[in-house]
Amino acid sequence: MNLLKIKKIVENIFKNFKLKNTDAKISAEYLIKAELLGAPSHGLARLKMYCDRLSRKIINPNPKIKIKKISQSISHIDANNSIGFVAADIGIKVAIKNAKKTGIGLVAIKNSGHYGLSCFYAEQAVKKNLIVLCFTNAPPAIAPYGAKKSLFGTNPICFGAPTGNKIPFIFDTSVSMINRGKIRVAAKLGHKIPLGVALDKFGKPTSNAKKALKGVQLPIAGFKGSGLAWMVDIMSGVLTGANHAGKVKDPFDDFTGSQNVGHLFLVLKPNLFVGKNYIKRIKENIRTIKKLPKIKGVNEILYPGQGMKSRYKKNLKKGIVISKNILEEIKKLNVIK
Amino acid sequence: MNLLKIKKIVENIFKNFKLKNTDAKISAEYLIKAELLGAPSHGLARLKMYCDRLSRKIINPNPKIKIKKISQSISHIDANNSIGFVAADIGIKVAIKNAKKTGIGLVAIKNSGHYGLSCFYAEQAVKKNLIVLCFTNAPPAIAPYGAKKSLFGTNPICFGAPTGNKIPFIFDTSVSMINRGKIRVAAKLGHKIPLGVALDKFGKPTSNAKKALKGVQLPIAGFKGSGLAWMVDIMSGVLTGANHAGKVKDPFDDFTGSQNVGHLFLVLKPNLFVGKNYIKRIKENIRTIKKLPKIKGVNEILYPGQGMKSRYKKNLKKGIVISKNILEEIKKLNVIK
Repeated sequence: MNLLKIKKIVENIFKNFKLKNTDAKISAEYLIKAELLGAPSHGLARLKMYCDRLSRKIINPNPKIKIKKISQSISHIDANNSIGFVAADIGIKVAIKNAKKTGIGLVAIKNSGHYGLSCFYAEQAVKKNLIVLCFTNAPPAIAPYGAKKSLFGTNPICFGAPTGNKIPFIFDTSVSMINRGKIRVAAKLGHKIPLGVALDKFGKPTSNAKKALKGVQLPIAGFKGSGLAWMVDIMSGVLTGANHAGKVKDPFDDFTGSQNVGHLFLVLKPNLFVGKNYIKRIKENIRTIKKLPKIKGVNEILYPGQGMKSRYKKNLKKGIVISKNILEEIKKLNVIK
Repeated sequence: MNLLKIKKIVENIFKNFKLKNTDAKISAEYLIKAELLGAPSHGLARLKMYCDRLSRKIINPNPKIKIKKISQSISHIDANNSIGFVAADIGIKVAIKNAKKTGIGLVAIKNSGHYGLSCFYAEQAVKKNLIVLCFTNAPPAIAPYGAKKSLFGTNPICFGAPTGNKIPFIFDTSVSMINRGKIRVAAKLGHKIPLGVALDKFGKPTSNAKKALKGVQLPIAGFKGSGLAWMVDIMSGVLTGANHAGKVKDPFDDFTGSQNVGHLFLVLKPNLFVGKNYIKRIKENIRTIKKLPKIKGVNEILYPGQGMKSRYKKNLKKGIVISKNILEEIKKLNVIK
């Protein structure tokens, strides 16, 4: 489908659900960007959910977002239950500004919502020639090590660094074996998921996506993944003033109130310690790694962000494929209100 | 063996190898602490290696460690090839001071060496009621995703947070399936390692520790672990001015020069955004997670740091067991020079 056309439709839907023009535009752009990046789980499959929450006012369509300056480097944002995209977009811009001024910028955000992909925000910092770490928590999806009930979200860790060429280094990973959004899309489309990435509600391995959604996702590497998820929950939840310890609401299933997701952005100047040599150093780093002997079937060792970028370019050319289910949803949303 | 006695012997050995009194004391303390924490791979098994490097002056016994203040929050340390313990110990203290003053402290260290366990330094920050992240790189041990040659170190990620009780939250994990030191100890003692954690030099799975040391360790979770290792190499190597991209020398095998390991410490006040509520929030976080239903065979869900602390207490009571090989090494070192 024509990209500009679909983006315009999504933007209009958001406006009809009372988002301000600029907020509707940002939100539509990020949903389409997720599709282009090959992450449909964070794309149009979420549009109806956002609209449902907007119409019930548990996403605040007209938030008063407060930015509190704690120091030249540190800011705290109360997003007043805005749609996550808007709060995070403001947050990363403040973190970038703080880092440009003092070398280091730290921004914590509370009362926000699901913000799409961390790489949206990391990319902004890297494009301004900065190093970035993004943390966000999410509704319960994976069980802490030793527990048989899910509590941690898939709690992504995202790291970005300028590379001196057009494609930034952006590593954006959940700490679960599989992205929850992927299971959700599989459930919607009736597809199977691989065995070993999730358990059903009785604690048994399952390849049924619907059963997995009611069960528990598995963290990467047992206690290591569980520890990383816990770290992200402390950084983005406990520290920021947002919900934590499993209290972030599932945006698809729980309409009893706002999510109160937390985000934490840390931004650094890459030249703090090595000056102008940074670009030479990172280029040498990547070049050295790319030159390593490869395993069978691998033509090139890609750095994180390269695969994403090539998927983006390819999809930009050929357009995005929207499943029938989701197209139906969009059509319905476009006539409502 | 009596702890005080062995610590004194190790301290004297370090002094005989020309370390200053205070540096010998710190280094001996950290080696014994690793033993007490149940990480013998980072303990006395390394003493001979440190002495060998000291006697060849590729660890500088009398370094001029330079601390450059970049801002109230940020400092850069050139460790002048000191023994890693000493540089890192100074580094964390500077990071703590910076954070106490401005809310956030960032310290980068170059020209350092292997510093033992990250938790040594994280613990110091947490004891001062601060949040901490520690990164360090290490000699080649694991292969980047797609490569069949090792390049990244086991590159640990360490995160610490005050809990409001005596046992701090300290999550200290390598991004490899198994700690390289554990393989080294297994090789020394002739033990096997589990299958699936390492490949031999021909790229085949092996349970032979000696073959694994010549081969490649596997990262956790494929490209996810590989990406985390790459992130740590950029943060602690590329940014700091230390070696990176596989150039950190193996302290056991490569005596052609100093290691030039890099470390990066980030320290934050936990009350920046939630004030005095932090302790209430973290306690609630831990309490909620501990209350989850447990899988069969688990009596209590432990937070990272609890297991370590109980091993420490147990070992402190019963003393540490030193293998015959290592005892021989210590005896020899104690009469040399």
